Amino acid sequence: MARPMALATLVHPTGYHTASWLHPQANAQASTSIEHYAGIARLAERGLFDLFFVADTPAARTENLTAFSRMPLFMNVFEPLTLLSALSGMTRHIGLGGTASTSFGEPYTMARQFASLDHLSGGRAAWNVVTSANDYAARNFGLDRLPPHAERYARARECVDLVKRLWNSWEDDAFIRDRAAGLFFDPAKQHAVHHEGTHFRLQGALNIARPPQGHPVIIQAGASETGRDFAAQTAEVVFASETSPGDGRRFYTDLKGRMERHNRDPDSLKILAGMPVLVAESAQEAEDMHAELQALIHPEVGVARLSMDLEADLSGLDLDAPVPEERIPQKARFHQAYFDHIVGMIRNERLTLRQLYMRYERGNRTVRGTPTTVADIMEEWFTGGACDGFMLMFNLLPRDLKGFVDSVVPELQRRGLMRENYAGRTLRENLGLFRPPHPAAG
Amino acid sequence: MARPMALATLVHPTGYHTASWLHPQANAQASTSIEHYAGIARLAERGLFDLFFVADTPAARTENLTAFSRMPLFMNVFEPLTLLSALSGMTRHIGLGGTASTSFGEPYTMARQFASLDHLSGGRAAWNVVTSANDYAARNFGLDRLPPHAERYARARECVDLVKRLWNSWEDDAFIRDRAAGLFFDPAKQHAVHHEGTHFRLQGALNIARPPQGHPVIIQAGASETGRDFAAQTAEVVFASETSPGDGRRFYTDLKGRMERHNRDPDSLKILAGMPVLVAESAQEAEDMHAELQALIHPEVGVARLSMDLEADLSGLDLDAPVPEERIPQKARFHQAYFDHIVGMIRNERLTLRQLYMRYERGNRTVRGTPTTVADIMEEWFTGGACDGFMLMFNLLPRDLKGFVDSVVPELQRRGLMRENYAGRTLRENLGLFRPPHPAAG
Repeated sequence: MARPMALATLVHPTGYHTASWLHPQANAQASTSIEHYAGIARLAERGLFDLFFVADTPAARTENLTAFSRMPLFMNVFEPLTLLSALSGMTRHIGLGGTASTSFGEPYTMARQFASLDHLSGGRAAWNVVTSANDYAARNFGLDRLPPHAERYARARECVDLVKRLWNSWEDDAFIRDRAAGLFFDPAKQHAVHHEGTHFRLQGALNIARPPQGHPVIIQAGASETGRDFAAQTAEVVFASETSPGDGRRFYTDLKGRMERHNRDPDSLKILAGMPVLVAESAQEAEDMHAELQALIHPEVGVARLSMDLEADLSGLDLDAPVPEERIPQKARFHQAYFDHIVGMIRNERLTLRQLYMRYERGNRTVRGTPTTVADIMEEWFTGGACDGFMLMFNLLPRDLKGFVDSVVPELQRRGLMRENYAGRTLRENLGLFRPPHPAAG
Repeated sequence: MARPMALATLVHPTGYHTASWLHPQANAQASTSIEHYAGIARLAERGLFDLFFVADTPAARTENLTAFSRMPLFMNVFEPLTLLSALSGMTRHIGLGGTASTSFGEPYTMARQFASLDHLSGGRAAWNVVTSANDYAARNFGLDRLPPHAERYARARECVDLVKRLWNSWEDDAFIRDRAAGLFFDPAKQHAVHHEGTHFRLQGALNIARPPQGHPVIIQAGASETGRDFAAQTAEVVFASETSPGDGRRFYTDLKGRMERHNRDPDSLKILAGMPVLVAESAQEAEDMHAELQALIHPEVGVARLSMDLEADLSGLDLDAPVPEERIPQKARFHQAYFDHIVGMIRNERLTLRQLYMRYERGNRTVRGTPTTVADIMEEWFTGGACDGFMLMFNLLPRDLKGFVDSVVPELQRRGLMRENYAGRTLRENLGLFRPPHPAAG
């Protein structure tokens, strides 16, 4: 076969659906149970997934708690680097990716922790670079509010560049451990970083050997113009959020097209289409399973989630009437793509508030049906040039992942779209990404 | 028996001795081998150790590389939080402690990562609070040099206080997961932190439930006046560096005496005497094993280690003559205790430079002999009121730890000084430390 499709999964404790924690099959202790996470990671590994991925926001909501107390999202979660490190010893093949924001952390510590994870896992680490998109996270790091979009991206560029240089502090073969000569490392193979930038100053070398992958894999998900340019310049995996193969193809072509001006081979970036999937033995059963979760969404949660992404206060409105124009902000401050999507639904479809949140709820976009149906849709995206693979979301975990691994994976293998075994040893090898050579290597 | 002695071990990859990596039995790949670390942790667990501990410096040397290339110390190591998280799944009982500096990190991230480790390990996390003691680490975090001692400690106090308040962001029973009521948490049990301090500003709540231990255990090792006061105020475990039972007793009495003014019960702080130990079947064999490692110290390494702690340039001097007075600085900038110890040896004993570094090499203070001899010395310290237990260092790992576990542990058990099994579930329970109640708990 040509390159097999890449598979990643985004893991929230009980699943991707807002109401998953209310489902009778949900694990009530999921948020802080490493056994629960390990079970999911091993299941994904059984399904030959390339990447186990956790998103992150370094903050818990502290306002509007009446609504947020009905929504577990990021209120009680493991910190990604510690979680992934624990999982590194409980898995053997699957990549381990996590989000870390460039807006708050120290490049030295980020470089070190991801390098350490890469060594712990034998070359399976990936860093999802985000600039964060809310003020309440900023307030945990001494700021009153998030810096403007352009400034955040400028900082992100400088941070990623600096982190990569830190990963190159040592050549691959610097630690020679030559007992006869008494040399633990070859002094000529240390390359200290001297950086005086706009956002960071640093003089030093990382205190860990070059990562097994050279650099952990760089992930991004930015959809804005700036975000796309940044991804074209530095990302190796991009999570895309388009919802139709046509939009997917346009995004794919656009992003890969932008890579040329950075002298990058389009194949050195893998675009994974974000896709919630639900598989069942019959189409009707899949619909029923979907409806069961949708019915568990509390109106307060539906409205609150919508309010967040519309960046507007929607409280006190009639659930069964359209959203009044004056409640809709002129423009987004944080997340342009979500904002545009909601405003589009309000203006074009005249939905009531209740219809709007039920429709907007991301679980509602779930691709669902029999294994054949789901495999058909994935095949259409993949062979139609809309993606290099998928970032799959499962509404209820581990149930829906298990269903997928047991039925869709064999179907994709039968069609020659997925491999039968892990092809490589590292995440890069499995994804078909080249290993960055050290700049000083001959 | 009365309270059993507490046992911790400080783990450097191939062992505590500077030259351990040159020993034929050393694991050449130890630095970045998780299997190697896991083997040591499991061995310590077999010996019923309370705590597996890794020290840290967030920097690699970039100058004087000719000497440093002969010394692996901290040049190539796992980052502590990622390492301990990986070990959490590979061990069941032993506490997992690591160093993190308050001079460079963000309190929110530190609070989160240690809380996450505590959840991952089921209540076995410990944080060794340090203020760092070198400029080359400072340069990795945007500073030209380390702030002065007093300012570092002021920042450390504020940081630890803030981290503890973040650990109290939620009451123990905040996450009720009440499906019938649709409430994931009880909004009344979130306690957001509002902090406007000298070194930090923060408005928010931690996004993880209160740690199983309430707070991970706080460790300190500061020996200065300021360090002792800080320890008396906040530490729950202190690593002491005294080298005789008499000095140990004086330190013990002094530190426990300082706790009263902070309204703390002396029993809520455990003082562990730092002690390198080496056990063998005969006294002669122990001497030979010790001499074998001492003989592997390269003069360049001996002089460099001495130069670091004396904070002086000792290069170009005759190895077999005393250190000239003019090379000795007036006072220490970084580590007073090490400095005083070296100056004392120079002034009082008129040692040559070679004698000085051979004597100073910390491995040289190794308590060594048969299991009976080592147990006798430990018993003298412990029953004589010089410590609550030990922070043991093993010159060559895993060899020397294995010898200790196989021979000294049973001997201590026979004498009724050590327990036969882990008594508790968490590190706090094993150490006999109380679990901090949440301030809002009735």
